[in-house]
Amino acid sequence: MNLPLLLETDPVTYLIGDGAIEKSATRLSQFNRIIVIMDENVEKHCLPVFKQKIPSINIYGIITIISGEENKSIHQLIYIWNELTRLNVGRDDLIINLGGGVVTDIAGMAAATFKRGVQFMNIPTTLLGMVDAAIGGKTGIDFAKFKNQVGLFINPACVIIDPVFLRTLEKPHWQSGFAEVMKYGLIMDKELWFKLEGSNYLDISDWNKIIIKAAKDKIDIVRFDVFEKGMRKNLNFGHTVGHAIESYYLKSGNPVTHGIAIAAGMICEGWISSRIFKVECSNLENVIEMIDKNFQRLDFTDGDIPRIMELMKQDKKIRGNKHKLSLIKKIGKAVHDIEINDDLIMQSLEFYIKRKKCEK
Amino acid sequence: MNLPLLLETDPVTYLIGDGAIEKSATRLSQFNRIIVIMDENVEKHCLPVFKQKIPSINIYGIITIISGEENKSIHQLIYIWNELTRLNVGRDDLIINLGGGVVTDIAGMAAATFKRGVQFMNIPTTLLGMVDAAIGGKTGIDFAKFKNQVGLFINPACVIIDPVFLRTLEKPHWQSGFAEVMKYGLIMDKELWFKLEGSNYLDISDWNKIIIKAAKDKIDIVRFDVFEKGMRKNLNFGHTVGHAIESYYLKSGNPVTHGIAIAAGMICEGWISSRIFKVECSNLENVIEMIDKNFQRLDFTDGDIPRIMELMKQDKKIRGNKHKLSLIKKIGKAVHDIEINDDLIMQSLEFYIKRKKCEK
Repeated sequence: MNLPLLLETDPVTYLIGDGAIEKSATRLSQFNRIIVIMDENVEKHCLPVFKQKIPSINIYGIITIISGEENKSIHQLIYIWNELTRLNVGRDDLIINLGGGVVTDIAGMAAATFKRGVQFMNIPTTLLGMVDAAIGGKTGIDFAKFKNQVGLFINPACVIIDPVFLRTLEKPHWQSGFAEVMKYGLIMDKELWFKLEGSNYLDISDWNKIIIKAAKDKIDIVRFDVFEKGMRKNLNFGHTVGHAIESYYLKSGNPVTHGIAIAAGMICEGWISSRIFKVECSNLENVIEMIDKNFQRLDFTDGDIPRIMELMKQDKKIRGNKHKLSLIKKIGKAVHDIEINDDLIMQSLEFYIKRKKCEK
Repeated sequence: MNLPLLLETDPVTYLIGDGAIEKSATRLSQFNRIIVIMDENVEKHCLPVFKQKIPSINIYGIITIISGEENKSIHQLIYIWNELTRLNVGRDDLIINLGGGVVTDIAGMAAATFKRGVQFMNIPTTLLGMVDAAIGGKTGIDFAKFKNQVGLFINPACVIIDPVFLRTLEKPHWQSGFAEVMKYGLIMDKELWFKLEGSNYLDISDWNKIIIKAAKDKIDIVRFDVFEKGMRKNLNFGHTVGHAIESYYLKSGNPVTHGIAIAAGMICEGWISSRIFKVECSNLENVIEMIDKNFQRLDFTDGDIPRIMELMKQDKKIRGNKHKLSLIKKIGKAVHDIEINDDLIMQSLEFYIKRKKCEK
C-alpha cells in the first residue's frame, strides 16, 4: 500500500497515513488565508510538528481554546466566533481544526456556522480523532450538561490523518481511540478484531496499519449515510449505554474518559446482544476479556442505575421514546434499530456491576 | 389558479395562498409532538388564528422569545436550546417557527442545531417573512454587532404561507416585505414590477396574488442554488450597500427597518448599475421615484460614509476582499459577481445623499 492513502470521496477528501501532512501542502496553498484552531496542548506539541512538515504554508491566524471535554462549551464556541470576527475571516478562507475530538467538534461547529459556513479541514492529533471524531461530520458542543446537545452534521472539505502526531501524545491518551478501534472490529471488521484480540493497546507497535484500517471502516460507514438514517447507526454500538454512563460521571463531578465509558457500554450492549441473538457465551466472554484487559472497571452501583437510565432518555438516538439500540449478531456484524425495553437495559447495567456468568 | 398553491420541491414542500394553514393539517398530524416557537406579539395575535384554523392539531409545547431584530441574539438562541432541552424535544418531533424573519431565522438555527437537527416548518406571519425570510434556508443570529454573523443554510421541511396572518399586522409593518417584493420585480420579474409601478404599498388590495408571485420568484431562485454559489446571488441586489447601512444605524443606536435600509441600498446599487451598464436614465429615475414613494429618506451624511464602507467589509458576500455586487442590467434582469471598487460605491452613497441628476 502506498502511503499516504488518498480517498477522494464526494464531497470529502481523505489523506491517511504516514506522510499525509506533507502531501496536503498543494491543497493548502490554494486558499486565500489559513486560520488554525487548536487547544493549548496542541499549540505546544503539535503545531511545531505541523509547521516543520510544511514550512511553505503561511498561517494567517491562530485561535487557541482551552483543552478538555468540560470545555466543549457554548462559552468557547462564542470565543471562537469572536476571534473569527476579529480576524475578519471570510468564505474564501480555510479553517484548519488541529487537535482531538473536542477541537474538531467545537471548531467544526464554529466554522460551519460562522457567516453561514466557512470551509474547514480536520487534522486530528489523537488516536480517537484519527479513527473517529474527525471523520463523518458530527460537530457540536455539550449543553445543559448533555453531551453534544447542540451541533450539526457538516462534513469538512478534507481530513488529513497523519500518525506523526501520535508521537506527541502519551500512550495512556490513546485508550479512548482504542475503544473505537475495537468497536469497528466488533461491528464490521472481523479481520481487525482478530488482529487486536489478546493485545493490550500499550503493547501495539504497528499503529499506522491499524489507523488506516479503522479510519477506512469509519469512512465506509459514513460516506453514504451522513445523517445517520441507516447503517451509520451501527456505530452506536456501546454508545447508548456508554454515553449515559459518561453523562452520569460528568454530572457527578468525576468525569471518566470517553473510552472507558464506551468500553463499559460495549459490555452492557454486548450482553444485551447475547440475550437477543443467542450469541455463544464464549464470544461474549472473549469480548469482555478483551475490554477488561484494556479498560478499568467503573464503580457505579445498583443505586446509580435509575439516574443512568434517566440520562439515557436524553439520547439523540431515541425515536419516539423507545430505545433503539445497535447490537452485534456476531463478531464483525452489527444490526441497528433493535427496540430494547428499559428492563433489559437495567439488567445489563446490573450485569456490568456483578459480572454474572453469561446465560443464554 | 387553485389555492393554496402546492409546490413539492425536493426537499422542501411549499403551501402558498389563502387556505394554506387548513391544508397543512394532514401533514402536521404525522408528527409525534409539535412545538411552536414564536415571539410575544405572534403569541398574542397569530397563535389564536393558527389554533382556530386547525383545531385538530395538538400543540405539545410553546417557546416564546422576545420580538425585535435587536433580540436576534445569542442569548435568545441559548434560551431556545434550554427550552428544547426542558421539553425533551427529539428528532421525531416537529418544530414550527411561527412569525416574522427574526423568529424564522433564530428558531430555524435553534432547530437545525438542537441534537444535530430537529425537523422544522416555517409559517411566516409578516409580509417580509412570506416573500423572503421564511424561504431559502438562511438561518442565523446577529453576533458581535454584525447581522447574521452566525448561522447556517438549512431548509425547513415545509413552508406554509397563508396571507391570513397579514390581517394581524398593522400595514406600516408591511413595508420591509414590500422592499423585497420590489426587488423581485427589478431582478427577475418585469411583470411584477409593472404591476407594482406607481403604487404605494398602503393602497394595494390584492396581496394574495402578489405574495404568491413574489414567493414563487424567491423559490425559483433558491431551489437550485441553496448555498448561494450562482444565481441566488442575484437576490443580493441592494443588499451589499443596504446591509452596511442597516448595520450602521443599528450600531449607532438608531436602528432602521430592514426595508428602509434595503430601499436605500437599491438606490445606490441601482445608480451603480446605471453607471456600469449604461442603463437609460429614465429607468433609474423610475426606480428611484417608486422607492421614494414607498420609503422615507435616510439622514446619513458624507461624514458617515467611511464608517458605512468599513462595515461593508464584514459582508459575507465578499470574496477575496473585493466587493462583488449583484446589479441590474435592465428591469427584470440581474447579474451577479460584478466587481466594483470602493470609489464607485462611495460615489453611490454620495448620490443617495445629494440625489444628483442621473448621468450616463
